[in-house]
Parts: sequence; C-alpha cells; structure tokens
Amino acid sequence: MGKALRWCLVLTCLLVPLAGDGLEMNLKNYCESWRMNVELHNIREFQVVPEECTEYIGKYVTSTQYKVDSQRATEECLVYLSTSCNLKKDGFDAWIFDIDDTLLSTLPYYEDNLYGGRKLSVTSLEEWMKKGNAPALDHSLKLYNELKSRGVQILLVTSRKEHLRSATIDNLVKVGYYGWTKIIFRDPANELVSVKKYKSDVRKKIINDGYRIWGILGDQYSSIEGIPSPERAFKLPNPIYYVA
Amino acid sequence: MGKALRWCLVLTCLLVPLAGDGLEMNLKNYCESWRMNVELHNIREFQVVPEECTEYIGKYVTSTQYKVDSQRATEECLVYLSTSCNLKKDGFDAWIFDIDDTLLSTLPYYEDNLYGGRKLSVTSLEEWMKKGNAPALDHSLKLYNELKSRGVQILLVTSRKEHLRSATIDNLVKVGYYGWTKIIFRDPANELVSVKKYKSDVRKKIINDGYRIWGILGDQYSSIEGIPSPERAFKLPNPIYYVA
Repeated sequence: MGKALRWCLVLTCLLVPLAGDGLEMNLKNYCESWRMNVELHNIREFQVVPEECTEYIGKYVTSTQYKVDSQRATEECLVYLSTSCNLKKDGFDAWIFDIDDTLLSTLPYYEDNLYGGRKLSVTSLEEWMKKGNAPALDHSLKLYNELKSRGVQILLVTSRKEHLRSATIDNLVKVGYYGWTKIIFRDPANELVSVKKYKSDVRKKIINDGYRIWGILGDQYSSIEGIPSPERAFKLPNPIYYVA
Repeated sequence: MGKALRWCLVLTCLLVPLAGDGLEMNLKNYCESWRMNVELHNIREFQVVPEECTEYIGKYVTSTQYKVDSQRATEECLVYLSTSCNLKKDGFDAWIFDIDDTLLSTLPYYEDNLYGGRKLSVTSLEEWMKKGNAPALDHSLKLYNELKSRGVQILLVTSRKEHLRSATIDNLVKVGYYGWTKIIFRDPANELVSVKKYKSDVRKKIINDGYRIWGILGDQYSSIEGIPSPERAFKLPNPIYYVA
C-alpha cells in the first residue's frame, strides 16, 4: 500500500465514523478489535498484521500489558495443575510446550520486521534462529521450572525443523531451559501437512507411548487444537503471526 | 471482601510492583489480563467478575470498543461465508446462533448486578427475561438478516428453558429477529448435563436431520465447543459471566 493511501486510510479511520453502522470507529478501536478477534480465533490465516496496525501491535507486544497477559496465562496453568490434576508421579505425567513465542521469544526478529507487518521470510527467520539468541519468556520459564519440580515430564514439540536442532538446544539451555524429557523437531518429510496435523500426530505418538498429557501451553491454535486433545490447553497471546 | 481490604488491594496493585516478578502491574493491567485470559479460555468456570474489576469490565461492555469487537466478529462470519462456504441452497445449509449476548443483550440486567460482579440469581435473571425487553445486538442482527437473505437456515439453540419460550419469541420478534427455521429451548429433563453437552447433543440431532452446520456464533465456549463441531465457530466477547 502506498504511503499516501495509507495515511488517507488512517485519517479516514480517525476522523470519520464508518459508513452506515453508526459506530464512531477510530484507528485504535479498529486495531484493538483486529487483535481481539485474532485471539478469539475469529480471524485466521492472516499473512501479515494490517499495515495501519503494525505500530499498535508493536506497542502491545513490547508493553507491560503483554507480559501481564502472558503471566496470567501461565499462572492459570499452575492453578489448574494444583486443583484439577491428580498426578500419578510415575514418570508419565506430561506437559507439552511449544517453543517459539511460548518458551523463547522471537520478538527481536519481528521488531526488525514491522512486528508482523512484513510478509515472513522463512530463510531470514531461520538465519536468526540459528544464532541462538532468542530470549526466554520469563513467565513460561517459571512455569517450566515449577512443572519440572513437581515431577511432570516436559515435552517440547516445535515446528522448527531438524536442521535447527543444535542451535535451538543451545539457545534453550543458555536462557535456562533444561531437563526436558523429549524435544521433537519437524521432519522435512512431513512438511506438506499443516502444523496442526503434525502436532496432533505427535500427540498421538506421545499418548501411545503411555504419557498422560495434562496440558499444553502454546501461542498458536495449531499447537493446542486437533485430536487427540490434552486435558486442558492454554493459549498465550500472539497477534504478530498465524501458523495454520 | 471488606471495603477496606478491597482498597488495600487496589492501592497495592496501583502502587507496588508485584513481589518477585519484576512487573510493575497496576489495576488496569490486572483487570485487562483477567479479561483477555477469559477470552483466551485460559480462565474458566468463574462465578463472578473479580470485585476490583467490575468497574473496568462494566466500562468495556458499555464501550464503543465492545461494539467494534463484536462487529468485527460478525464481519468475519460473512468473510468466511463468502470465501469458504459452498452453499448448496437446498434448504439444509444452516447456521446456529446462541441467543443471550449473541442475538439479545442481557447487559441491562447485568448493569443492575455489578456487571457480573454479583453472584447470579437465576430467578431474578429469568424474571428479567420474562419481561421480554432485551435489546438486540445490532451487528448480530445484521449478520442474521444477511444469512437469511442468502438462503441459510437459521437455527437458534439456547440454554433458556422451555417456560421462557413465548417471552423469548416475543422479545426476538420485537427487536427484529424473525424467519428462523428452528428454535430449541432446554428441556428441564436434561438440566443435569452441562450446557456444552446439551448443545453438542442438539447439534448431533440437527446433523442427523440432514443439515450442514456451516457456522456457529456464540458468546460462550460451551456454545461452540464439543463434538460434533461446526465447520467454523465464531466467538463474541463476553467477560461478564461463564457458562460451562
């Protein structure tokens, strides 16, 4: 979209009520409703954050609010674990974590890419991942360690590919994640199926191996939806990209 | 909670970073994260809106933002319908709507009950429903009429009980909803099962009758989750109560 057209759109949103519906919508309302409907899973398969909302979304994901929202999600995992899980402690109580934007933050990468406003270059993202400098999501690290201390087996299921294995493990350990039971990377052979199907298939194998999946923490619906379901799934906010 | 304790909590939230986690959380952050995690379905089964957040939640549900968020959800239904549904137009293309806080707003009732901050009295809510004065949710009404005009059969599935049938129908028609194909109320005989199970069972019958459920619009996860699933489910925001 040209810069002139973009500003025209911005000004239209800011100044003029949307035709015909009687709502005095402004750009903030518009971008907030976009974000909310992404989290509600009403908006799916978006390729980029709408250009006029990249500033709004960038502010959110770098805000205290984003951290507090994420903290609350991880706290709810612990509430659930303490109130509703009858752990058997036989080595088969398990919890699944997604990696990107669940354990490790890709924000430093997206900061340089308009916070999701620029169409994703897998090559450049993987180049960045190979450096192994992704910071931890602090609240996830706390949850991870708390689960570990309660004897829950930690299973990491990522759509990162095998060739990123050693860089990913180095990165995880460097920021404080270790002692997991399994870490499963995506085999290039199954890249034709969706991430949702890949992650469901992995859960099937995990359950066949005898694990009870008490919960999943992920930032994408493709990490937590699909059959077989865990007992409970918890979703971290992530308005910067969509993985189907 | 006593008033003094409440204010103590409020002041603590406003002024003091939460111990040990380095986050400068304030009351707004706290209430917003509560709301967001309700919508993410991380917080479930809450009985009341936290006392210290009733003002925040009341402001949201009476705001332009709430309307814009709801509008976007209904717009996404139409995007989906126009891009991904191959309607057969044989009288069996169907869409399910929940009623309360999907077609009709219960906000006037909750306005008098601390916006979900007071524990629900089913008797007083049903008394209010019997008056038949619930206003329409404008964006849902638009979607409803648009679906009707495209020949989609409209199925209303509510957890309102049979004794509210005539008051509900009067109310719906009065605010502009008519021309539905089925309206299904809850039989007191099955009140022991969860709303989620009741609504899933209704969908099973609907599918057995030959309908293709293209979508559901509801404000509660119990209206849209469970097997059989529709092709797509759309969720309206609702932070004031939780129906399991």
